[in-house]
Amino acid sequence: MTVSNNPLWLYDTILRDGAQREGISLSLTDKLTIARRLDQLGIPFIEGGWPGANPKDVQFFWQLQEEPLEQAEIVAFCSTRRPHKAVETDKMLQAILSAGTRWVTIFGKSWDLHVLEGLQTSLAENLAMISDTIAYLRSQGRRVIYDAEHWFDGYRANPDYALATLATAQQAGAEWLVMCDTNGGTLPGQISEITIKVLQGLGLDGRSEHQPQLGIHAHNDSGTAVANSLLAVEAGATMVQGTINGYGERCGNANLCTLIPNLQLKLDYDCIKPEQLAHLTSTSRLISEMVNLAPDDHAPFVGRSAFAHKGGIHVSAVQRNPFTYEHIAPDVVGNERRIVVSEQAGLSNVLSKAELFGIALDRQDPACRAILETLKDLEQQGYQFEAAEASFELLMRQAMGDRQPLFLVQGFQVHCDLLTPAENPAYRNALATVKVTVNGQNILEVAEGNGPVSALDQALRKALTRFYPQIADFHLTDYKVRILDGGAGTSAKTRVLVESSNGDRRWTTVGVSGNILEASYQAVVEGIEYGLRLLTCGLTNQEVIST
Amino acid sequence: MTVSNNPLWLYDTILRDGAQREGISLSLTDKLTIARRLDQLGIPFIEGGWPGANPKDVQFFWQLQEEPLEQAEIVAFCSTRRPHKAVETDKMLQAILSAGTRWVTIFGKSWDLHVLEGLQTSLAENLAMISDTIAYLRSQGRRVIYDAEHWFDGYRANPDYALATLATAQQAGAEWLVMCDTNGGTLPGQISEITIKVLQGLGLDGRSEHQPQLGIHAHNDSGTAVANSLLAVEAGATMVQGTINGYGERCGNANLCTLIPNLQLKLDYDCIKPEQLAHLTSTSRLISEMVNLAPDDHAPFVGRSAFAHKGGIHVSAVQRNPFTYEHIAPDVVGNERRIVVSEQAGLSNVLSKAELFGIALDRQDPACRAILETLKDLEQQGYQFEAAEASFELLMRQAMGDRQPLFLVQGFQVHCDLLTPAENPAYRNALATVKVTVNGQNILEVAEGNGPVSALDQALRKALTRFYPQIADFHLTDYKVRILDGGAGTSAKTRVLVESSNGDRRWTTVGVSGNILEASYQAVVEGIEYGLRLLTCGLTNQEVIST
Repeated sequence: MTVSNNPLWLYDTILRDGAQREGISLSLTDKLTIARRLDQLGIPFIEGGWPGANPKDVQFFWQLQEEPLEQAEIVAFCSTRRPHKAVETDKMLQAILSAGTRWVTIFGKSWDLHVLEGLQTSLAENLAMISDTIAYLRSQGRRVIYDAEHWFDGYRANPDYALATLATAQQAGAEWLVMCDTNGGTLPGQISEITIKVLQGLGLDGRSEHQPQLGIHAHNDSGTAVANSLLAVEAGATMVQGTINGYGERCGNANLCTLIPNLQLKLDYDCIKPEQLAHLTSTSRLISEMVNLAPDDHAPFVGRSAFAHKGGIHVSAVQRNPFTYEHIAPDVVGNERRIVVSEQAGLSNVLSKAELFGIALDRQDPACRAILETLKDLEQQGYQFEAAEASFELLMRQAMGDRQPLFLVQGFQVHCDLLTPAENPAYRNALATVKVTVNGQNILEVAEGNGPVSALDQALRKALTRFYPQIADFHLTDYKVRILDGGAGTSAKTRVLVESSNGDRRWTTVGVSGNILEASYQAVVEGIEYGLRLLTCGLTNQEVIST
Repeated sequence: MTVSNNPLWLYDTILRDGAQREGISLSLTDKLTIARRLDQLGIPFIEGGWPGANPKDVQFFWQLQEEPLEQAEIVAFCSTRRPHKAVETDKMLQAILSAGTRWVTIFGKSWDLHVLEGLQTSLAENLAMISDTIAYLRSQGRRVIYDAEHWFDGYRANPDYALATLATAQQAGAEWLVMCDTNGGTLPGQISEITIKVLQGLGLDGRSEHQPQLGIHAHNDSGTAVANSLLAVEAGATMVQGTINGYGERCGNANLCTLIPNLQLKLDYDCIKPEQLAHLTSTSRLISEMVNLAPDDHAPFVGRSAFAHKGGIHVSAVQRNPFTYEHIAPDVVGNERRIVVSEQAGLSNVLSKAELFGIALDRQDPACRAILETLKDLEQQGYQFEAAEASFELLMRQAMGDRQPLFLVQGFQVHCDLLTPAENPAYRNALATVKVTVNGQNILEVAEGNGPVSALDQALRKALTRFYPQIADFHLTDYKVRILDGGAGTSAKTRVLVESSNGDRRWTTVGVSGNILEASYQAVVEGIEYGLRLLTCGLTNQEVIST
C-alpha cells in the first residue's frame, strides 16, 4: 500500500487488542480468516499480533509471508526495548523483524508514573528506549507507527514529559504518533483540546505527508470511545485504531463498525469503498460467529435492531418517509429495516409484517385481530416471535387458514442411559421414539443419538424423509435455550430458539415448555415444517445467507 | 422535590422510552418495582408512561397516587394537542391530568418536515399546539418539561423555525426545554455548538432558576449518546434524560449507568449521593433481571468485565497500583475488580485467583503448572471458567489435593414420555434415576418432574438430603445453555452454566457434553458440591447477593 492522499487511515487491532476480551480465544485459522475478511472490507492496516510475546503469532506472520493479503498492510506489534539492554540482542525485536512486515507498531510509555513505577527506570532511559527502538527498526527498513500508551493520563500528569516522548518518537522516524487512551478514562470534552495542543507542541499541521501524523486509540471504559475517536479526527488525527464489533479488554476498544459509517457517511472521510461499506454488517456478524460471541443486536449501524421499529407511530411514519425516523439508509451498511412483532404491536405492525411475508392481509380482515390475540396469548405463555420470524409466519398463515398440515406430531418418548458403562464405541446414550401422522398414516420411528435432542431430530427425520426427501438438506445451524423464570429452579419454563438452514436460506423457530426436550422438539418440528413450506409454497422472506 | 441548587437533574425514561426496546415488556408490578428502585438510587425525575396512549399506564399512576415515591417526581408523558382541536376536549391531555403528577413532559415537533409531512398541518398551527398545550397544563397547576422531538434534525433543516418552537414553549411556561436527538444521528462535534447557539438564541444563561433551562435526550444510533449528553451538559444543559442500562428503541437511549459516574466522578456534578452511587451496579443488574435481558458484561462501570484484567502484564501491574490500569475505583460504583481465568492466563492470574479463594499457592508449587495444564485441556473440550468461578475453585482444590469427595456420582437414566396422553393432572412427563455413592454406600434414587433436568435435580437431592440436609436450602437461580459448534446440528456439544444460591450467596458451575442432560447434570452436581463446601469448608469468595 502506498500512503495515498486519502486523508484517513483505519487500523484494526482485533487480532491483538481485541483478543484480550473475555471469552475470545483465536486459533491460527481464525486469525487468518479474520485478517483476509478485514482486507476485503478495505481496512488498510491490520495489526496481526505480538510475535515476541506470543509464539503462536510468529506462525501467523509466516503464513502471511507465504500468502500475503491483497491490499492491507499487516502490522506486527511490539514494545520498546527493555531498559538498559541493546536493541540488537532484544529477543522481542528480533521476533518482530522475523515477522517480515513492512510496518511495525511500537508501544512505549508516556506516563511518568508508569516509567518510574511500572518499568522502574528513569525518565531519560524511557526516552532512549523509544528512540533506540524506532531508529533500529527504521535502519532495518521498517516503517513505524508509535503507540503512546496511557497518553491522556500521561499528558494530564506531566504534559512536558509526555510531549517529549512523542517528540522523541518523531525524531527517531515514526510516521504516526498514536494517542492511546489505554485505561479508557478520558471524556470527549478533553480530546479536541489535547489533540490540538499536541499538534502545536510538535509543530505538526496534521496533514503533511512528510511529517508524522497523529492517530487515536480509544478504549470504552467511559462509554465514549467512538466519540473520542471522532473528536480526535476532527481535531486533526489521521489514523483511527479500533476493532470490529468493539471487542477488547474490559469495556472494549473503539468500535470500527460504528466509526466507519460515522466517518464516511457523516463526516465525509474517504475510508473504504461504498461497495465495501455494504459488507460492514455481514463482516460484523461473521466475526462475531468466528469468535463465538452472540452479536450485539443493538449495535449502531450493524445490529439486528439498529433499524427496527416497534412503536405504532414510528412504524406508520417510517413507511411514509424513512428519512423521518432513520439517520441513514440501512442498506448502505448492508443492514435492513425491520418491523418488530410484539405484544405491544398495533395492527399496522402485523400488516407490514404480512406484506413482508407476501401475505395479502387487509386491515378490516378479522384474521388481523385473531393474529393479534393469538400473539398476545402465546407471548404470555413465554413465546417470543421477535427473533423467531419463521414461527410467526406459520402462526399468521394458520390464522388465515393457509397452513394445511404437512404432517402431525403425536408425541415422543426419550430415554437416556448414562448409568450403564459404554463399552462399545458405537454406544449412543440417548434413544428417541416419535409418532407422526402423514397422509393419514401413523408412523412410529426410533433413533439413537449422543444426546436426546439429536436422537429426537434423527427420529423425526427418519419418519418424514420417505415423504419429504428434501429434508436431507436441512440442518440446524444454531440452538439457543433461555430459562424464563429463573426463580422456579430446574422446573422453570424453557424457551428454545432453533435456527435451521437449507444451505441457501436460514430461518428461526421457537418452542416453549417446562420440559426442555419438548420445547426443543417444538422448535425442531416447526423448523422442518417451515423448511418444507419454503420449498413447496415459495416462502421467500427469510434471510439469504451471505457469508 | 424542590428544585434545589443542585446544578444537574437526571431524568430516567426506562418505563416509557426504554420499554420500546425489542424484547422488553413490562407488567404493572415490574413498572412499580423499577420506579421504586430508581427512587432509591436518587434519580429525581422518573418518567412513568404515556397515560393517553397506553391504558395500562393509567393504573400505574393511580397506584403511585396511593403510595407515592419517597423522593423522586414521577412524570407523565404526552404529546401536544392534536391539530385544530381544543385542549379541553383532548382525551390524551385529560388522561395526563388524571395521572395526578406534579410534573408532565410534553413532546412536540421541532422539525418542519415532521410538521408538514407527519402532522400534515401548518408551521403556525404547530406553534399554537405547543403554546396551547403547555399553557393549559400550567393553568391546571402542572409544571412542564418540554421535549423537542427531532431537535437536532430540525435545527439543521430550519434553525429559525426550530428555535421558534422552543421560544414558544418557553413563553407558555415550560421550565425545561429538552433537545431530543430522536433518530440518534447527531455526532458529538455538533452538540456544543448547537447547545450554545440555543442558549444565545433564547437569551438564556442556562443556570438561572427563574428561566427555563436546557435538557438533552440522546439516542445511541451513532454510538455517541453518552458523549453527546456530556457535551451538552458541559455547554450548559442542566437536565440529562436517559435510561438505566441504555435500554431503548433500536440502539438504545443514553445509558444512565455510564452517564452518572462520568458526570459525578469526572465532571464533578452533584447527581446522586455517594452511598446511592455505590448501588449503581446492583441497580443495573436488578433491572436487567426484571426486564429479563442478559446483562451486558462489557458495559462501562457496571459490567461484570468493566474491571476485569486478563493480560499477564496488566494483572501484575494492577496488583501493584490499581490506578495505573483503572480509570476509577470499582467499589465507588458498587462493582469489583476481577482477575480473569483463561487459556491465555499466565501463572500470575492463577496465583491471584488462588489468593482471592484464600488458597495458599506458591509460584514454585508444581500444582500451579498442573492447574494451568488442566485448564487448557478442559478449555479445549469446551469448558469455560470465566463465568464459572465455583467450578474453577473446585478444579484448583482438586489439583492441590484439597477436594475430598463428599459424594460420587455413578450415572443416571432419564425417561421422558410425551406420547402417552396425560389424563391425570398429577402426571409428570419425566422420570430420572440417579446412582450416587456416599460414605461407601451406593444410593439409587428415582424422582419425577415436569422436565428431565428438574427430575434429575429432584432425584439427586433425594439421594443426598439424608446425608446433607442443608441441601434443602439450595436453589437454582439461573440456567444457561450454549451450543459450542453450531455446525454440528443437534448433536453439537453443549455448555451449561448453572447458578445456584443458598439465599445468602450465589455461585456458578459449568458442565459440557454432547448430551444436554449430561452437561446439565454435571453443572447441577458441582453446584451442590460447591454449596456444601461453602458451608462446611468456609469458601467465602462468591458473590454476596445484594438485591
